[in-house]
Amino acid sequence: MMQHNFSAGPCILPKSVFNKASKAVMDLDNSGLSILEISHRSKAFVEIMEKARTLALAHLNLNPNEYTALFLQGGASYQFLMTAYNLLESKAAYLDTGTWSAKAIKEAKLLGEVDVVASSKDKNYNYIPKSFTVPSDANYLHITSNNTIFGTQIKDFPQVDAPVVCDMSSDIFSRAIDFSYFDLIYAGAQKNMGPAGATLVVVKNDILGKVSRAIPSMLDYQTMISKDSMFNTPPVFSVYVSMLTLEWLKQEGGVSAIEKKNKEKADLIYTEIDRNPLFEGFAVKEDRSAMNATFTLKDEALKSKFDEMAKQANLNGINGHRSVGGYRASMYNALPLESVQVLVDVMKELERTA
Amino acid sequence: MMQHNFSAGPCILPKSVFNKASKAVMDLDNSGLSILEISHRSKAFVEIMEKARTLALAHLNLNPNEYTALFLQGGASYQFLMTAYNLLESKAAYLDTGTWSAKAIKEAKLLGEVDVVASSKDKNYNYIPKSFTVPSDANYLHITSNNTIFGTQIKDFPQVDAPVVCDMSSDIFSRAIDFSYFDLIYAGAQKNMGPAGATLVVVKNDILGKVSRAIPSMLDYQTMISKDSMFNTPPVFSVYVSMLTLEWLKQEGGVSAIEKKNKEKADLIYTEIDRNPLFEGFAVKEDRSAMNATFTLKDEALKSKFDEMAKQANLNGINGHRSVGGYRASMYNALPLESVQVLVDVMKELERTA
Ligand SMILES: Cc1ncc(COP(=O)(O)O)c(C=O)c1O
Ligand SMILES: Cc1ncc(COP(=O)(O)O)c(C=O)c1O
Ligand SMILES: [Mg+2]
Ligand SMILES: [Mg+2]
Ligand SMILES: [Mg+2]
Ligand SMILES: [Mg+2]
Repeated sequence: MMQHNFSAGPCILPKSVFNKASKAVMDLDNSGLSILEISHRSKAFVEIMEKARTLALAHLNLNPNEYTALFLQGGASYQFLMTAYNLLESKAAYLDTGTWSAKAIKEAKLLGEVDVVASSKDKNYNYIPKSFTVPSDANYLHITSNNTIFGTQIKDFPQVDAPVVCDMSSDIFSRAIDFSYFDLIYAGAQKNMGPAGATLVVVKNDILGKVSRAIPSMLDYQTMISKDSMFNTPPVFSVYVSMLTLEWLKQEGGVSAIEKKNKEKADLIYTEIDRNPLFEGFAVKEDRSAMNATFTLKDEALKSKFDEMAKQANLNGINGHRSVGGYRASMYNALPLESVQVLVDVMKELERTA
Repeated sequence: MMQHNFSAGPCILPKSVFNKASKAVMDLDNSGLSILEISHRSKAFVEIMEKARTLALAHLNLNPNEYTALFLQGGASYQFLMTAYNLLESKAAYLDTGTWSAKAIKEAKLLGEVDVVASSKDKNYNYIPKSFTVPSDANYLHITSNNTIFGTQIKDFPQVDAPVVCDMSSDIFSRAIDFSYFDLIYAGAQKNMGPAGATLVVVKNDILGKVSRAIPSMLDYQTMISKDSMFNTPPVFSVYVSMLTLEWLKQEGGVSAIEKKNKEKADLIYTEIDRNPLFEGFAVKEDRSAMNATFTLKDEALKSKFDEMAKQANLNGINGHRSVGGYRASMYNALPLESVQVLVDVMKELERTA
């Protein structure tokens, strides 16, 4: 039975990727060996890793002479620490737009002064703060481009002098923006890129090497760069499936093409949220995320009925995060428009029968 | 064509595990969802994680009230840092038995005084130092139970008062020893446990919480324990396949049963290395590893002939590490005796035709 997977991450990936990955677990490209048993130093895997790194930069339209793509372990949470370890010499500026920003702030504080330049915590993070000042002596500004839990997304990136570090975990490869605006981008694979277990870091080479602390090997971007992202055993399978997903994205026409589809899906759900008198959106309209639509039932008494209808329609993973409540429809790159249509139909059906 | 996979890691896993993993990539237990797209907070995955953690402790015969099993990211290299972060208050003792010990020492030095109590570097790590003294004020002794590159293995563990931390990456679950001797065990999954991308840590709860430094969340065992090994998104697929492999090990009769098979394999190869006048072993006999047999051709001129014969026989991954040269046959739990027999036959054939 076809499931409509609205999970916030790990999440749906393209069916063709599942097919290829499943085959490679039995036999990678007719090698007689499983992708799970080959050496990470084998020619086959070195090529997979290089392909994944090259595709990542190509999709972001970044110059490989200026930027390096790394596939690391540890998730985005590890990057909260790693970015600060490598870049925070004295003071860093952080924009607090949600749970993940707040966690990044917590880790950075262990390594230096953190200036929280603005926060939307006052309204349970239902908007993106727009006017703030970044201190001129900040080593960098850290932002979260898409707030997975609250369903907000930065549309216009602030003009700042400091290098910009961005947690792009939940909207990387979803829209065409000028990625050269960023000096460091990181993203857990498990939304638009692949399965859990790999983390993409894209770093502008010239921002590194400026802090005075000794950096442990496993936290040092320069070590990872010098070893072509294989300082130690990489998460082979997660990198492989990420590579397949980045290839799929290329076949789909890249980020510009996928952005159009993502917009269609977002328009469909938000139009219904606004139109349907039973529902209301959580995030303020101008900051709504195209990836995660957060909404609530005005009348909680309808919850069990709606949940049952959603279940009957094979809608998966639409429960909201406990920090927001209600519902969250995550509509990452691989989610088909039809799945959103099924959700919208159920919302309409609830209205008709409530 | 059947390949005989002697890779040092990532390495061969049981065929039945590949089958199940491949199916789960298409559809996990008839859920209609891939193991790659389910939420790590789903009931299905929470159960998988708990099963993996429970099986790991059960195989090691450790009391779940005293020890906690964690599946983390970062590999064993990350544990070089994490162990020191959590346990090194002033001074730690390290036994230097190879490249991996040396790397662990390097990371620990960033956090405190490191006393290298003994080293076999003088003989390119071809033996295990036996007599050494651990300072009474050492916070712990760090050892490497099996030296993957050099093919040595600790057979008798030293009697010490300090807590013992062990890098068991390349021989965990391969032999029945009293695991309660250890206070912390870590191992990258990619040898006897599963695919790359997960790292098992088994820690005795009462050794934690004794250092004065502030520990970043992602480096803090207590944080990982308090979140049931899901502080952040775990490497879902690698944990799943590790769980399948630990289930397979149970069906095989556990570590005692697998130890017998491993001994058969090791006896087979070492007997031939000793018997065959063309080859010689690298590690001293009493310290030979049952997991990684290192050996060289006495006459380098035979190398291309032997390599070609090995290739024809579908022997994979037998090249030695560059630090040792020659050959290395890694014979992890899932490698069948037949594969070792094929290698031995090729060695005999070389002798016959050389
Ligand atoms: C925006 C954002 N940042 C960070 C994280 C944490 O990622 P991880 O679980 O890989 O550490 C998430 C997880 O969903 C996220 O959505
Ligand atoms: C004994 C030992 N320790 C540590 C490592 C490093 O493991 P990882 O690559 O997972 O960091 C290895 C890798 O082969 C190993 O054999
Ligand atoms: Mg800039
Ligand atoms: Mg409405
Ligand atoms: Mg003891
Ligand atoms: Mg011999």
